[in-house]
Amino acid sequence: MGQVEIFDTTLRDGAQGEGISFSVQDKLAITEALDELGVAWIEAGNPGSNPKDVDFFRLVKKTRLANARLCAFGSTRKKGVRAEDDEQLASLLSADTEFVVVFGKASTLHVREVLKASLDENLAMIAETVQFLRREGRTVFFDAEHFFDGLARNRDYALKSIMTAAEAGAARIILCDTNGGSFPGTVTEGTRAAAQCLAEHPAAPPLGIHAHNDSGLAIACSIAAVEAGCVQVQGTLLGFGERCGNTCLAALIPSLQCKMGLRCLPDGKLSHLTEISRRVAEIVNCTLSDDTPYIGTHAFSHKAGMHADAILKVRSSFEHLDPALVGNGRHFLMSEQGGRAAIAERVGKLAGGVSKSHPAIGALSRRLKALEAEGWAFDGADASFEILVYKELGLYRNFFEIIAYRVQSEHPAGKLMECCHAWVKVFVNGQYEIAAAEGDGPVNALDGALRRSLLRFYPELVKMRLSDYKVRVIDGKQATAAKVRVLIESTDGISAWTTVGVSADIIDASRLALVDSIEHYLPRAKQLVVDKEG
Amino acid sequence: MGQVEIFDTTLRDGAQGEGISFSVQDKLAITEALDELGVAWIEAGNPGSNPKDVDFFRLVKKTRLANARLCAFGSTRKKGVRAEDDEQLASLLSADTEFVVVFGKASTLHVREVLKASLDENLAMIAETVQFLRREGRTVFFDAEHFFDGLARNRDYALKSIMTAAEAGAARIILCDTNGGSFPGTVTEGTRAAAQCLAEHPAAPPLGIHAHNDSGLAIACSIAAVEAGCVQVQGTLLGFGERCGNTCLAALIPSLQCKMGLRCLPDGKLSHLTEISRRVAEIVNCTLSDDTPYIGTHAFSHKAGMHADAILKVRSSFEHLDPALVGNGRHFLMSEQGGRAAIAERVGKLAGGVSKSHPAIGALSRRLKALEAEGWAFDGADASFEILVYKELGLYRNFFEIIAYRVQSEHPAGKLMECCHAWVKVFVNGQYEIAAAEGDGPVNALDGALRRSLLRFYPELVKMRLSDYKVRVIDGKQATAAKVRVLIESTDGISAWTTVGVSADIIDASRLALVDSIEHYLPRAKQLVVDKEG
Repeated sequence: MGQVEIFDTTLRDGAQGEGISFSVQDKLAITEALDELGVAWIEAGNPGSNPKDVDFFRLVKKTRLANARLCAFGSTRKKGVRAEDDEQLASLLSADTEFVVVFGKASTLHVREVLKASLDENLAMIAETVQFLRREGRTVFFDAEHFFDGLARNRDYALKSIMTAAEAGAARIILCDTNGGSFPGTVTEGTRAAAQCLAEHPAAPPLGIHAHNDSGLAIACSIAAVEAGCVQVQGTLLGFGERCGNTCLAALIPSLQCKMGLRCLPDGKLSHLTEISRRVAEIVNCTLSDDTPYIGTHAFSHKAGMHADAILKVRSSFEHLDPALVGNGRHFLMSEQGGRAAIAERVGKLAGGVSKSHPAIGALSRRLKALEAEGWAFDGADASFEILVYKELGLYRNFFEIIAYRVQSEHPAGKLMECCHAWVKVFVNGQYEIAAAEGDGPVNALDGALRRSLLRFYPELVKMRLSDYKVRVIDGKQATAAKVRVLIESTDGISAWTTVGVSADIIDASRLALVDSIEHYLPRAKQLVVDKEG
Repeated sequence: MGQVEIFDTTLRDGAQGEGISFSVQDKLAITEALDELGVAWIEAGNPGSNPKDVDFFRLVKKTRLANARLCAFGSTRKKGVRAEDDEQLASLLSADTEFVVVFGKASTLHVREVLKASLDENLAMIAETVQFLRREGRTVFFDAEHFFDGLARNRDYALKSIMTAAEAGAARIILCDTNGGSFPGTVTEGTRAAAQCLAEHPAAPPLGIHAHNDSGLAIACSIAAVEAGCVQVQGTLLGFGERCGNTCLAALIPSLQCKMGLRCLPDGKLSHLTEISRRVAEIVNCTLSDDTPYIGTHAFSHKAGMHADAILKVRSSFEHLDPALVGNGRHFLMSEQGGRAAIAERVGKLAGGVSKSHPAIGALSRRLKALEAEGWAFDGADASFEILVYKELGLYRNFFEIIAYRVQSEHPAGKLMECCHAWVKVFVNGQYEIAAAEGDGPVNALDGALRRSLLRFYPELVKMRLSDYKVRVIDGKQATAAKVRVLIESTDGISAWTTVGVSADIIDASRLALVDSIEHYLPRAKQLVVDKEG
């Protein structure tokens, strides 16, 4: 089986996408997800142009990666400056990664009109930058910017630029379709030309492809390049990137691996593709398009009755691939028999002896459908799903009840009170308690007041804290009257669990998720149940 | 200049997309839009399987089409039934269109396992159906379902199926990649095989391609088919369709017309592509992905400062096509990655005579960086960016001031009051006003109270409403004390604008975005400024 190196640049080129803005925490979480998927390289940032990336490279050192290696990204040295004196190269080194990617110009148009340098100076910039980074102990990948457009404009020069990088010791030469306008045929021809040219050199570094989707052809161009000899494919897991995005790796990897027989991920990882892709979308808080090939919610869903019927006769009749290979599911089955079987499996884990034919499964299935129609989603909220199951089985015991609460946000702040404050009144074991708190925001105030009201009864709550909070507007088109879904992650320092709440009122949605979160924790803290997930 | 026939099936195959549901009025409006764009054929429905389509075909007769011709869609006759007695064919005729499309099976797997018919019976079904429809005066297009998969399974039979349709008098043979799993190379080879086979027949009807996007290759497969001899391309304008969708015609047509020199639309129509595509998205009430090639909002957006800088020097440096050709526009995003040149360009549009070296540009650039470090993002919030510019240039005049507000969310609701309510006190032209409102959520209540307080001074606010609302937790790991970024889209029914607010308090973040939104609208409603955005 041949092999393709998967190079993910979500954190660098993906960050150029409009509306994409990563915090350092987001970047760390995405790094872990990509490593778990098993990509070979993660291009993690441009320390020279983005100060946030410097923090990231410092913090990421604590993360132990099992599969992926990190790359820092930068450009060739400035014109007229020695590589040793170039600030941008110094910050590239400060990222302290074994691998660095530098891009340089392969098109005479860009050298002359944008860089306003001589053609020779540009070649010197490429050579000296690669040599300098090599002397500093780095393995260098060279991104030949605008390679295909450059080839069309001045073939010799484009080839000379990559030859220069190869001779200077670059370990990979990446052919970039920077403007995303190339057709697969152009990429095939250009890749062959590059391979033929480099073959004359004894080191002949392997080639990579970096495509953009401005003509809707990024995936096709990447496949064409691999067929013509590229061993590395660059892209972003979900296709984010400037303008129309980069090659969507999640939509490409299954084609390479299952249809072309090229190994891209470590064994057993492909079946996690859907789950990990959706997790990254959650971290970025972006909506993954339902029709994304392979991993989209609708990628294997069938609406036409005739198609559904045919699939029940012959699986392959309307499916180009078994969705299980990429960890996705056939949609019409999920809402019918498959749905119940899946629910029964989950419930069986929580309460033994509940089979598919148990009446609670039917009731739970109907309840789930009704809740989903209202905007609930339990995919990422195991703890809330578990509480739902216990309630349906009659096994739920609640530890407290909120009798009433009020949350207030006012501006300007009074002299004696913060802008956000709340009180909560609870009923616990026949007793009432009321408590108040101030907070940075209304949900923070509500959380504070709720904990205080419960602390007298459940002192173990001091160990539990919220660790993540996410909000999604479910139907944006109804504007501020739209429903919101709140996901809350909580931790006791050992394990973490997630709960969900839905309401038109963001504070009430948060209250629902907060209550589930505490209700999930208390029996475990009291060791009333064995944590099956633990 | 060569020519390609554009065949749109939004109303038929597009209607198979999950979540897509057209009313008869929607279908009429889409028909008019497609005709205005100038597609050659509109596959408008399947009267045999969808009773709504019967109404449509009756009503559409009143619509005079300038460019497009309508097709009704159905299948070959049932096995063992004479074409004359087939109910589905009768309803196909009842649509009363000159052109009809019938699909038939080209794969032995489908004939044997799904249809459960003999191979000869399937050929007879194809021949007799085409002959019958021809006798009834129709021009028949034959969709060879699963052609490419069928070719791989039983080459002779797949070719025999299309030859049968050709001999029976089909005017076009459409090669369908029904499961969407084929690669462009397979399509090239299959198209050549089909052309070679049909060339033996004196009538030799022209070929068409019908691709699906299950491997992210629908556009590439369509281009490959055209290069191999297909003269008709089928798809849906926006790419809607079952599973991962059909070929997105809006993302393909510019490639065919501008890059391959193949005429697809009547003269002068291509520059309406963006506007008409967005109109169709509005009719369908679906969100057109911002990164859709050619027509997406971000298709020609630039965030990296270096790219923006280069484009201002040489337009083609980071653009594969002039956006004006497809009626789209160039857009520079304001971000920490964007350079001074891009900021200066934007500012120059708002206030003439401000060049890159103007002191306000430096101040604005520093202010942007500081705000972005606090979690602000102006990428998608042009209106807030504009207000920021005017403030920095000393040109800002505010229309009102919020003196104080209070928003409350409480449960349970009182007997006389909804759960969420708010009051706002404003100061306008030396006068105070206070107003209150209830709402579905706290932000909805705040929005209501703010508008009411201002309506006495600015009655034109009745025309403005919020159209979208988005929330992003900026650093989730600080849980409920984390900051949130709120994006609000507003509209006056003619244009739309987006504003942003950031705070630890979601209500306060919403307040900031709401204020910007109104402050952006009022001078335009009062025609105090010329809207440079047109």
